[in-house]
Amino acid sequence: MNLTVDGERLRKDIERNAAFGDVDAETGRGRTVLAGSQANERARDALVTRFEETGLDVRIDAVGNILGRWRPSSVDPDVSPVATGSHLDSVPEGGIFDGPLGVYAGLEAVRTLQDAGFEPDRPIDVVSFTEEEGGRFSSGLLGSSVAVGERSVEQARALMDEQGRTVDAALEEIGYRGDGVVDAGSWDAWLELHIEQSDRLEDAGISTGAVTAITGINHCEARIIGEANHAGATPMGERTDALAAASEFVLDVESAAKEATAESETAVGTVGSLDVQPNATNVVPGAVELGVDVRDVDHSVMDTIVERATQSLARLERERNVETEFERPFDLEPVPMSDRCRDAIHAAGANSAIETMDIHSGAAHDSMHVAKVTDAGMLFAPSRYGISHNPREWTDWEECRRATRVLTGALAKLTAQ
Amino acid sequence: MNLTVDGERLRKDIERNAAFGDVDAETGRGRTVLAGSQANERARDALVTRFEETGLDVRIDAVGNILGRWRPSSVDPDVSPVATGSHLDSVPEGGIFDGPLGVYAGLEAVRTLQDAGFEPDRPIDVVSFTEEEGGRFSSGLLGSSVAVGERSVEQARALMDEQGRTVDAALEEIGYRGDGVVDAGSWDAWLELHIEQSDRLEDAGISTGAVTAITGINHCEARIIGEANHAGATPMGERTDALAAASEFVLDVESAAKEATAESETAVGTVGSLDVQPNATNVVPGAVELGVDVRDVDHSVMDTIVERATQSLARLERERNVETEFERPFDLEPVPMSDRCRDAIHAAGANSAIETMDIHSGAAHDSMHVAKVTDAGMLFAPSRYGISHNPREWTDWEECRRATRVLTGALAKLTAQ
Repeated sequence: MNLTVDGERLRKDIERNAAFGDVDAETGRGRTVLAGSQANERARDALVTRFEETGLDVRIDAVGNILGRWRPSSVDPDVSPVATGSHLDSVPEGGIFDGPLGVYAGLEAVRTLQDAGFEPDRPIDVVSFTEEEGGRFSSGLLGSSVAVGERSVEQARALMDEQGRTVDAALEEIGYRGDGVVDAGSWDAWLELHIEQSDRLEDAGISTGAVTAITGINHCEARIIGEANHAGATPMGERTDALAAASEFVLDVESAAKEATAESETAVGTVGSLDVQPNATNVVPGAVELGVDVRDVDHSVMDTIVERATQSLARLERERNVETEFERPFDLEPVPMSDRCRDAIHAAGANSAIETMDIHSGAAHDSMHVAKVTDAGMLFAPSRYGISHNPREWTDWEECRRATRVLTGALAKLTAQ
Repeated sequence: MNLTVDGERLRKDIERNAAFGDVDAETGRGRTVLAGSQANERARDALVTRFEETGLDVRIDAVGNILGRWRPSSVDPDVSPVATGSHLDSVPEGGIFDGPLGVYAGLEAVRTLQDAGFEPDRPIDVVSFTEEEGGRFSSGLLGSSVAVGERSVEQARALMDEQGRTVDAALEEIGYRGDGVVDAGSWDAWLELHIEQSDRLEDAGISTGAVTAITGINHCEARIIGEANHAGATPMGERTDALAAASEFVLDVESAAKEATAESETAVGTVGSLDVQPNATNVVPGAVELGVDVRDVDHSVMDTIVERATQSLARLERERNVETEFERPFDLEPVPMSDRCRDAIHAAGANSAIETMDIHSGAAHDSMHVAKVTDAGMLFAPSRYGISHNPREWTDWEECRRATRVLTGALAKLTAQ
């Protein structure tokens, strides 16, 4: 069967979506589309219109997840669907591909299968999950957490933004407070196409990655307490400088992560945030708070890096006389993708002469949730220079087309009994 | 002559002043007295009342500096006065001694000389300078900058706080927008008693320090630019982490300052402020700004530390591939105190059996300005644990009395021709 993805049609969809919440950017093309915002409403409306034009049955669930189902009359309505999709929301001043590529590639795959006269044995659901990025109501993956039963509808709707506005009220306002729940457990399989957000595909010159696993994630919080004092009147030998101690900690975390890559090359450790008290040029820093991000596909390697971080703090207590605190409030296990889905991706690549490679995901995705209740797979398209969450995020249109072609082939394979 | 300082009278003055702008504090006793505030108005009113009770001629100048002159009728009005004083304003949540001790000790010295029947050959001016601490209108030393001609009255009055309120308007509102300018150049000599803000006197068990010099001060700004990227998706080997680079810089500045103490034990170097962009746990830091404070009594040693800081940045550019920027916008030369004033302090200590020692000042004071136009000296009283700019700032009342006794003796010596 000749599956010809219409790259131009896909490009137009993504560019139309890019106009919602678009921001001025020196370089590239950015957008700010927080869940439940006006920009999000317009992006949702446009998607629903496209779904309807494609003959999909559209459903909005209780937390605003949007689902468009293609079920030709020949398909038994009781057969489990295969689903695909991603999200339409963005981080503040994010890029135009992160999320929308996967949603519109899912739609384009359905259109391609329709155009080719393909007759699936299962329905195909194209999905846009609510607030994948987080940052307004949640720490992210909101819609998919409800779809897999991790969070109840009531819990999700009660979440509030900084202004005290609930998910419930925000969805009501934009007209996307629907009924029932998209049930990811009812799917036979799930595929999500997303930009890579790293440059391994670009470096390898390969158009599509088949994700092996999504790394586990730890967010840790460290606090180092010294003694604030006058920067002029406190001799060097009499200081308990919390920032100097924190600087050693930052470098220790970096070393620990670098050394861990010898055991598992996917390991990363980052001190991403650092806040100094009182943070005045003429005061010896009295306290520092640090946010540490640790990830790997192997949870025991994450444990090793976290252990090294706590050892660093213990050393600083001894050597620099500071007090320290450490917490590990957020600990997501690594999530392997299903072999069946990954095989379908590689086979679809081979059938369409598009090279694929195994690759891990260092970023979290809704697929982490979906993988808990059904076979899940992810496809990556190359990210120029690996940049994401930034207006300079870019994936060539031809690469979008190729990855969508692989997605289409994989969906065809998974929906053929 | 028997000069008996009334420690109880001095304590009452300082405690009365401590009630203006007092703040709740877990430990100690704090106050917030910003220049031109209501608390500042009440503190000024109380001082003026005390001056008048003591028979001083009170003058308010065009920038709100308060001067109370004691000139017995026997003293020729054309003879240059000897002046003493400090400031009544505080940092936010500062202590009760920093500033007020020097103002009220000056008043107490005059009362002591009057009580003893001392007949000076020069008038004695007791002075409270406007906004020594800064933080509302200026970076500090505001009133003294006008008194020595560094700033014009017009420039000073036009300075604005964050709400756009001028010095002029704030002084008018509290009734302290006077006329003319206190002319520090007309003084024969100047003495300022201040708390040490360090613990060298306490450690040595000595009641009064005679300041040899006030250190020079550099404030430098460093900027390190790396590449913000996804903390999960960016392998360790492909990062340009601005915070990891900044951490090396912080430790390099600390090492440079520690090593400089071998040449000049008064040298200090501090990275007091550090701001990360975007400062999110899950993003590799893209840029860091740092505020560096460097001080010493020897300017060439300050140069050495600053040079080492710039060498560190050059190394980080090579080794970590970051871009860096460095500025040194604030460069105050060290200011030696006058030998004549210092001799008067040591002599007054010896005459009253109060031990004195030479000591440098790592903090800036109005005396830095005054020293440009006349002979200036400073006396330090011990600071418990060296703490200042904090409600835990403390100087024992007996130490306040002793230091005031030395000040009184030194004023007697300087006003006797």
